[in-house]
Amino acid sequence: MPDIALAALEDFAQEVLTLRGVPPEDARIIADSIRFAHAHGKGTHGISRLSIYDARLRKGLMQPLTPLNVLSEAPAMALLDAGDGFGQVAAIRGMDRAVEMARNCGIAAVGIRNSHNFGTAAFVALQAVQAGMIGMVFSNAAPAIAPTGGHKAVFGTNPLAFGFPTPEGVPPILLDMATSQAARGKIRLAATQGEAIPLGWALDPDGQPTTDAEAALAGSMLPVGGAKGYGLSLMIDVLAGLLTGSGFGGGAKNLNTPDGPSRCGHMLIALDLARFLPRAEYDAHIATLIAATKSAGPDGQIALPGERGARFMQGRDGTVPISDAVLARLDALAGDADIRPLGQR
Amino acid sequence: MPDIALAALEDFAQEVLTLRGVPPEDARIIADSIRFAHAHGKGTHGISRLSIYDARLRKGLMQPLTPLNVLSEAPAMALLDAGDGFGQVAAIRGMDRAVEMARNCGIAAVGIRNSHNFGTAAFVALQAVQAGMIGMVFSNAAPAIAPTGGHKAVFGTNPLAFGFPTPEGVPPILLDMATSQAARGKIRLAATQGEAIPLGWALDPDGQPTTDAEAALAGSMLPVGGAKGYGLSLMIDVLAGLLTGSGFGGGAKNLNTPDGPSRCGHMLIALDLARFLPRAEYDAHIATLIAATKSAGPDGQIALPGERGARFMQGRDGTVPISDAVLARLDALAGDADIRPLGQR
Repeated sequence: MPDIALAALEDFAQEVLTLRGVPPEDARIIADSIRFAHAHGKGTHGISRLSIYDARLRKGLMQPLTPLNVLSEAPAMALLDAGDGFGQVAAIRGMDRAVEMARNCGIAAVGIRNSHNFGTAAFVALQAVQAGMIGMVFSNAAPAIAPTGGHKAVFGTNPLAFGFPTPEGVPPILLDMATSQAARGKIRLAATQGEAIPLGWALDPDGQPTTDAEAALAGSMLPVGGAKGYGLSLMIDVLAGLLTGSGFGGGAKNLNTPDGPSRCGHMLIALDLARFLPRAEYDAHIATLIAATKSAGPDGQIALPGERGARFMQGRDGTVPISDAVLARLDALAGDADIRPLGQR
Repeated sequence: MPDIALAALEDFAQEVLTLRGVPPEDARIIADSIRFAHAHGKGTHGISRLSIYDARLRKGLMQPLTPLNVLSEAPAMALLDAGDGFGQVAAIRGMDRAVEMARNCGIAAVGIRNSHNFGTAAFVALQAVQAGMIGMVFSNAAPAIAPTGGHKAVFGTNPLAFGFPTPEGVPPILLDMATSQAARGKIRLAATQGEAIPLGWALDPDGQPTTDAEAALAGSMLPVGGAKGYGLSLMIDVLAGLLTGSGFGGGAKNLNTPDGPSRCGHMLIALDLARFLPRAEYDAHIATLIAATKSAGPDGQIALPGERGARFMQGRDGTVPISDAVLARLDALAGDADIRPLGQR
């Protein structure tokens, strides 16, 4: 597995996307999101998706522009239409808008209609955190999870993320979780690499437990914690999908569906913590909370959500491993687009 | 186990509470919450708590009045001080206020400082649902869950609830879950009845898996889905505890602590669905979603969140079983207060 510099990933993504008609400032958001994923140990949500975007853009299954037309608005909410454009662009711009309204109102929610997968949810929550706010992010996705008691996938692995600002020098608290027992990206990766998956992650199409990654992708993934995960996944399908006028109840499609746009939706909420307590007091209390959490077990054994991701690049030389299969696809893309391949940047 | 009419439970609770100085309209909310718990199969959150309230009120560990002084407000948020009064009263009034602000702004959040356990979270979410809104409810609680990697309980079983309106005649979708693998009330009940608990629910004080309910109460409960449940529990501790100026990071206490008030907090959010799409369209889509969910498995095997609870009283004669131990405590309370015992109502 070759090691590639983060800066090269970003640069390559930016060039490919702008070549395909994505406005440079939008391509910047997408490239940032790809960099963030790799820099936080979530490479499954990174550069491997670039060749999918490229193919979709060329086939017209995805739009290079993300218009974000306003469908509805109130002092603390807005519903925006992503027009089958990029999820990262819609979610980051949508969160910016939520932050702006929350500054006046205390909290605000922005719904995004007809979007695509936005990469890692943590990257979107971080947009609120960097503005000094608490960010809450929900997205629905293609059917992957069967409701408890059933065997047919209806709900996506529908991620949620919560981001909390922290005192200077402390990594933000970033909870980013799929509502499945495991992330679908991990199963997809295992399928690509021909590896088995642990029992307890998924059911095959007949509803039987399986360790076969391909059978799992054809079947359904188990929700986290049984009925609780099913409930969370359904809740997110309503908030992010149904309520925004996007696909829901199995109607959102995979990023690589040949049948048309994904039609997934997002719900983005910003909460202004400064309306609840002064920032200095908040910071002091967060420091107390972190100390209480870490002292609940052996030294160094307990990590806050997002902490391991924030430390992922420590001790690395600014590069991350990219699989040969992904690199080969990106090299083909570079050849096709007549640009410098990733390995030469 | 004697069967007691729901109406008798409500009537008895109302009389005891008003006798102890709780204003009649507040006692009505608490009695409603108790009735709701029993009528939805969640008796652990019901009448058994009345003798605890009674003892706490008489010792001054809990206040009969729930003042809800405004500590901070903005167009879509408020922070209210419950003054160590009743959680049910604070949460229902707080949610009413969130609904009112959400009507103007699209979404609103109300934080509650220094409260007590509010009974079932679903009852609070339902308050928003009955106003035609989506309700989101978070509360922190006394330490019960150790962070993943540790053995000392820091976080509560911190419940969350999401409520969604449904078309006429269909039970509301009410997701109400503790962030522990099992509800603490179930372990408390097992301890009271001297029964074992399933493996996987809890750790003993040394961090070892246990089936002993008493050891589990002295040790820690396992979060749902491992690190994901730990993350959710921490997230709720920040939103409901830290942000509202209540106890957090282990600072919130049990309802029956002799050391003073509980100092737990709540975060209540109302989202006006009508700002996102017309109610008729919402109803049609929810009906589609419910049908898609139910058709994902064998007929009658799949329930929507809240559905089993809503059907709990079907085929019953308006009564619910109350354990002999609970009844004995309530009889003692009736004797002490010189009122008609529960069994004679």
